[in-house]
Amino acid sequence: LSLPAPTIADIRAAAARIAGEAVRTPLLPAETPAGERFFVKAECLQRVGAFKFRGAFNRLSMIPEEARPRGVVACSSGNHAQGVALAARLLGMPATIVMPANAPAVKLDNTRGYGATVVTYDRETQDRDAIAAEIAAQSGAVVVHPFDDPGVIAGQGTVGLEIVEDLALLGLVPDLVVTGASGGGLASGIALALEALAPGARLVTAEPEGFDDYARSLSAGTRLSNERATGSISDALLSRSPGTISFPVLSRLGARGVSVDDAAALRAVAFAARKLKIVAEPGGAVALASVLDGKVEIAGRVVVVVVSGGNIDDETLVRALS
Amino acid sequence: LSLPAPTIADIRAAAARIAGEAVRTPLLPAETPAGERFFVKAECLQRVGAFKFRGAFNRLSMIPEEARPRGVVACSSGNHAQGVALAARLLGMPATIVMPANAPAVKLDNTRGYGATVVTYDRETQDRDAIAAEIAAQSGAVVVHPFDDPGVIAGQGTVGLEIVEDLALLGLVPDLVVTGASGGGLASGIALALEALAPGARLVTAEPEGFDDYARSLSAGTRLSNERATGSISDALLSRSPGTISFPVLSRLGARGVSVDDAAALRAVAFAARKLKIVAEPGGAVALASVLDGKVEIAGRVVVVVVSGGNIDDETLVRALS
Repeated sequence: LSLPAPTIADIRAAAARIAGEAVRTPLLPAETPAGERFFVKAECLQRVGAFKFRGAFNRLSMIPEEARPRGVVACSSGNHAQGVALAARLLGMPATIVMPANAPAVKLDNTRGYGATVVTYDRETQDRDAIAAEIAAQSGAVVVHPFDDPGVIAGQGTVGLEIVEDLALLGLVPDLVVTGASGGGLASGIALALEALAPGARLVTAEPEGFDDYARSLSAGTRLSNERATGSISDALLSRSPGTISFPVLSRLGARGVSVDDAAALRAVAFAARKLKIVAEPGGAVALASVLDGKVEIAGRVVVVVVSGGNIDDETLVRALS
Repeated sequence: LSLPAPTIADIRAAAARIAGEAVRTPLLPAETPAGERFFVKAECLQRVGAFKFRGAFNRLSMIPEEARPRGVVACSSGNHAQGVALAARLLGMPATIVMPANAPAVKLDNTRGYGATVVTYDRETQDRDAIAAEIAAQSGAVVVHPFDDPGVIAGQGTVGLEIVEDLALLGLVPDLVVTGASGGGLASGIALALEALAPGARLVTAEPEGFDDYARSLSAGTRLSNERATGSISDALLSRSPGTISFPVLSRLGARGVSVDDAAALRAVAFAARKLKIVAEPGGAVALASVLDGKVEIAGRVVVVVVSGGNIDDETLVRALS
């Protein structure tokens, strides 16, 4: 049994809540090496370096005043962690974040830097949700799921709202939006915004090869899982299976999925730095990689690619540029 | 004898001309390592990777239809070159760009990539303005000066307009805007926008050490020159002396200047990549460097730092991250 998906009214309410706190990220014009034009929604420029701040701040803002002192707890490989940690700090709430011990150092450090308590676990052997549930049971904190939460999805959906609004200023309507997917909160939030505001637009999810649970699930019409939980450079996109709220939304709206390998993700990181002047992390660049690699047909269409995060270690960025 | 400076009406007209062509770059919230907050106007995300597109597109748009087939000619170390080249392509005009032979490869390549003809010269021994004048005399092309042109300055002034407008959405008014200065077109354009829209705000120019002609000229009250024409990592900021239109504007409005060394510029490039997720070139990062190095007092003030360009070679970016 899953919670109901947010409505466009919920997404608009989220936009009002995050206004002045979240960055209104730019829609950057871009070009493939072959000369096809598309736009990049640069969510790596969001606070905490990823779109996750939108959903976290919206969800935490919905917690009643009297429940706020008991705080929040969240599980995350890093970007949701930072989003919840910063949102909690801004709203004066304590936050505990359950993170994989092998998360990138930059994400662990930043989460602590925002004032959260970090509890680490082993990605292969431990159940992060059980750890979070235990903490919540003891403290009375609200568990903020990274994607299976209508308030989180509504916050991520503001990305779609802004895409439609900013294209309208150029006299354009999107035909296609390509975004990375892990649990699918961002993808489903965008798809719901498109359904209401640009119903002709289709959504494509991009994933790392071997972690293409969305692509396979959308093809099969039912939620399928990845075999592995580790082993991709795109550490932000390793959720085991599609979210229970997000998958039905994306399936109903006719989304389809593509996947790219690690080398393609790194080439997209380099393209982002050289051509767009933005710093993307590999998981944040898989959608861009899918376009650059020709996995998505963009000729003659108004296409927006979401670069969803930029929390990359120096060594990985240097490697991408080499 | 210099041309008159543009007015706020000229800057507003420029904003209307560039709308839909230039990127409305974001104002990113930032924090010094010591925790002081400030905003970064990320002009490295502008088309061609630098604010120069604004001035170039505005100026070229002002050329009458009948003169457009004869084209334009410009001198530039790289960013103005790319701005003029792209603006010319968008407006269907031929462009010839006179560039130093030792300009960064990325800037030479991109300028050619936008379809311009590139003529190179030796920065130490040749007079680029004489070369451009000769080309113009032969072809009838319009010479587009990188800063001593009211149309160019008005275009750069749209940066100041957007800063004031975007801060107003947050309920803020700028106290201080810090920007790199070479000829000073960007600095004077912003200062003119501030004079009209935020008259309490002061402007600070940032320059590379040893190339601080603006800092010394503003102190002395008269235009002074740099001794050298090369020798800084900030290749975008090596104009010999302040512009004849820009200097009187900045002097009248009480601007002052600071300078930073190459190491500080590189640290700012690294900070921009790690914390802001933007790619800055050294010259584009000197204003940020001056704030990070404590050369500008920002405590308790609403401060905006312009990161003016991001056209950096891979090796320099890698060096900054090491």
